Amino acid sequence: MNGAQAILRTLVELGVDVCFTNPGTSEMHFVAALDSVTEMRGVLTLFEGVATGAADGYGRIAKRPAATLLHLGPGLGNGLANLHNAKRARSPIVNVVGDHATYHRHFDPPLASDIEAVARSVSKLVTTAGGLGSIVSDTIDAYRASVSAPRGVSTLIVPADYSWSQGARPDDHGQIDEKIELTTRPTDDETRGFTFNIVAKMLRSAEPTTFLLGGSALSRQGLLAASRIVNSFGAKLLSETFPAVMDRGAGIVPIDRLAYFGEFAQTQLAGCKHLVLVGASDPVSFFAYPNSPSLFRPPDCDVQVLAGPSEDASEVLNALVEYLGVTKTVPTLQHFVSPQIPSGPLTATAVAAVIGATLPEGTIVSDEGNTGSLSAPGSTQGAPPHTWMCLTGGSIGQGLPVATGAAVAAPDQNILCLQADGSALYTIQSLWTQARENLNVTTVLLNNQSYAILEFELDRVSTTAGSRSRSMFQLFPPMLDFVSIANGFGVDAVSVNTPEELAIQLRRAYSESGPHLIEAILPKGFS
Amino acid sequence: MNGAQAILRTLVELGVDVCFTNPGTSEMHFVAALDSVTEMRGVLTLFEGVATGAADGYGRIAKRPAATLLHLGPGLGNGLANLHNAKRARSPIVNVVGDHATYHRHFDPPLASDIEAVARSVSKLVTTAGGLGSIVSDTIDAYRASVSAPRGVSTLIVPADYSWSQGARPDDHGQIDEKIELTTRPTDDETRGFTFNIVAKMLRSAEPTTFLLGGSALSRQGLLAASRIVNSFGAKLLSETFPAVMDRGAGIVPIDRLAYFGEFAQTQLAGCKHLVLVGASDPVSFFAYPNSPSLFRPPDCDVQVLAGPSEDASEVLNALVEYLGVTKTVPTLQHFVSPQIPSGPLTATAVAAVIGATLPEGTIVSDEGNTGSLSAPGSTQGAPPHTWMCLTGGSIGQGLPVATGAAVAAPDQNILCLQADGSALYTIQSLWTQARENLNVTTVLLNNQSYAILEFELDRVSTTAGSRSRSMFQLFPPMLDFVSIANGFGVDAVSVNTPEELAIQLRRAYSESGPHLIEAILPKGFS
Repeated sequence: MNGAQAILRTLVELGVDVCFTNPGTSEMHFVAALDSVTEMRGVLTLFEGVATGAADGYGRIAKRPAATLLHLGPGLGNGLANLHNAKRARSPIVNVVGDHATYHRHFDPPLASDIEAVARSVSKLVTTAGGLGSIVSDTIDAYRASVSAPRGVSTLIVPADYSWSQGARPDDHGQIDEKIELTTRPTDDETRGFTFNIVAKMLRSAEPTTFLLGGSALSRQGLLAASRIVNSFGAKLLSETFPAVMDRGAGIVPIDRLAYFGEFAQTQLAGCKHLVLVGASDPVSFFAYPNSPSLFRPPDCDVQVLAGPSEDASEVLNALVEYLGVTKTVPTLQHFVSPQIPSGPLTATAVAAVIGATLPEGTIVSDEGNTGSLSAPGSTQGAPPHTWMCLTGGSIGQGLPVATGAAVAAPDQNILCLQADGSALYTIQSLWTQARENLNVTTVLLNNQSYAILEFELDRVSTTAGSRSRSMFQLFPPMLDFVSIANGFGVDAVSVNTPEELAIQLRRAYSESGPHLIEAILPKGFS
Repeated sequence: MNGAQAILRTLVELGVDVCFTNPGTSEMHFVAALDSVTEMRGVLTLFEGVATGAADGYGRIAKRPAATLLHLGPGLGNGLANLHNAKRARSPIVNVVGDHATYHRHFDPPLASDIEAVARSVSKLVTTAGGLGSIVSDTIDAYRASVSAPRGVSTLIVPADYSWSQGARPDDHGQIDEKIELTTRPTDDETRGFTFNIVAKMLRSAEPTTFLLGGSALSRQGLLAASRIVNSFGAKLLSETFPAVMDRGAGIVPIDRLAYFGEFAQTQLAGCKHLVLVGASDPVSFFAYPNSPSLFRPPDCDVQVLAGPSEDASEVLNALVEYLGVTKTVPTLQHFVSPQIPSGPLTATAVAAVIGATLPEGTIVSDEGNTGSLSAPGSTQGAPPHTWMCLTGGSIGQGLPVATGAAVAAPDQNILCLQADGSALYTIQSLWTQARENLNVTTVLLNNQSYAILEFELDRVSTTAGSRSRSMFQLFPPMLDFVSIANGFGVDAVSVNTPEELAIQLRRAYSESGPHLIEAILPKGFS
């Protein structure tokens, strides 16, 4: 068994059986090993940003890591932006990056670069395999880092000579412990009691208190517990702005998200005296602006961390329900509401209404609609139960790959990708992998011919912006034709101009297997 | 004047008047500054890898840097692979990367990351602007690093508050010296005399001697001098495997390139006793293979550096001609040869013949055809004088962006992009910028439905490769339709199946303004 086979075999034994690949010559022995380690499913992507984003989407839904297979430093570089998003989503991912043979690297061949330095910027752990003797334990370490709290990205760099050399033996020392799983670090009873006591005092003070939820607090069970708590004391619930995954829809506790724009976020938190963080961070402006505060909470608002990034926020909320003795409190549950399919022009609001009216139960939504999908959370709030995934790290080009990975993790569910036009073009190659793997992804491509969010930001910066600056955010001329592009990648695609057409095409897409792209032609710009 | 305006104004005064952009909110004041610093041409790209690759192509042809405008760490990450190629090409580039405001960064907002660490992997100099007082000198330093020998990539990171703050004054201290230009470091006379003496002894020894040329040694003048030298002493000329830019064609000294595959490269260097490096590196295998040497020259071959990376290799060769007294030696010049346009099926060899038969004088060729363009250097050797650019750093996805940047640098010349299918899909968004800027780029898209070079490498690794491993290098199903994709990006495109059709379409493309894509349907795989 060579080193590459040992790594793949070890990953499979750890339960990692999907690898999103974009390999080259230095990873050739990993590719060859797919013939002997047949439990590992290789999913080819045309660009590394698709591979890493798909691993992110897979990790969010499967709750366990996929591997990626990347080609030296530049391959890792191409995947870096979506690894940044995955890091912010706390998605478990194990990157395998090939490197030159150990004896070859010092000749500085053309593809040599400092892989470790680049990997560190997104990884919890970066390991360069130390040789055949440690290659299995290095793999286990990489896996363990990705799944232990807080979960994240880990990167294993494998010199080519360790991949091809014979003599590796998988798990010689019984290191693969059944107990390695997605772990959270439980808080000791004393600390928990102390924290619960503070939060209880806040709640009983009757002063304005807001619970800001993130991570597993946004699961169905976490939301249920949170609702019981705030309903018992008249406190308020908010979700972090861009959750990695949240449960929502009819029968689930509804929750507003903290707004992206600071003006609105400050309004949502106005008057708050106690902010309780449950798997969420102290909310900070996405960007700084002249004369605007970085933090959104009022200056006199204190902050209490109820569940930190290493804890299972849902479990903590449920324990707090017991502690407070509010298990009998009636939670607020969302009623079923189905919007009317509107008539008239196809606007972003109309698209949202149609999506709300047609969403099948169990759909997983990958939302990178940006300004084009601002109304979609509202219009789908009363839809059948579904799952919502956001752009977590602000690096655009994540919606299509995350949808792709989610579809690999959940082949029997509908995946809906709400995708802005500008953002789509960073990782548009995702469509080909969706077609190749016959994934049930329906993409609504919101074509407003602009980086609309940036036009909006330009207006905030300059009231006299001219044509030269404006043109930097206009995606015309030429107008992009996403139907042609999607067809070129092998995906069924149509363009729609009315809400009624969109509804027909959405229902068709949901009912057919394989990927579909529906290009919604919207008014230009932020509307 | 705010900081962003001061930086743009300073760049313009230094002669940097093209900026390939993909900005976001943290770069908003740079975008707004385009309205007041009107000498700076902003060229929008849909993906950062297009911006950095275009800056590489621009630098190779214009011989001066373009700027890029990139969005924080993830934006730099997306541009990293082509910056790696630019570093290997020694192309001058000034990256401007926006960052969070200085007082905002420590809150760890979603887009925060270690930009400097990532930038260092490709940059000669990484500077984070120190404030309004130094922002102009920081810009000058970044420029100076990019153009001084050996040229390369430099990165200026600009916190948003320095961009938007008022009070910057361009070049307060007269730091912009007229003498800042693309510099090479001249060798002192004593060192040069010593080196020339050694090389002269090698040549006069009558032992097999090869001059390996790179950098400016591959310019028309450098080649002329090199030919005079080797013809005088019966020595041999070779070019480095992947030159950034070389002059070739009728009336120019012909030169073979050292082969990519080690088996062939070793044959080219077999028996060589003295290897003289002139702007080229000691040739090393692109990748290591089991039981193959890393270095290509025979073990008993000594090496002499005649011109290192900081020197103007063409100037050194011309000085050596004087030193050796061989100014009268007749150089070998290429005769005009035009291949026949073949009949029969469209193979990679047939494509190459058609390209050789139709190439207009002065064409700049961006060659990322990989296995699909292996015959093209041979078939164009006797074509009218033209310029050839290669993939320098091995990170695929460089052909289309480099062609794009070259077209911005040389708007009156034909640009021919020989583009492999798999490689095209890393930066296919280049096509849109070509259409938007009406650039005279003709892309011949070599569609063999595979990563053919990797299929070849797989066969070298495993004689029993199965369908699971093979499928990782097959770009079907579904078959990619590059005509649809190009049309979607606004580029005129046709598909051709015969050499005659290709000739007709090439001639049409060369005669019309704006971009064209011709998809050449080839037999599957390495042929």
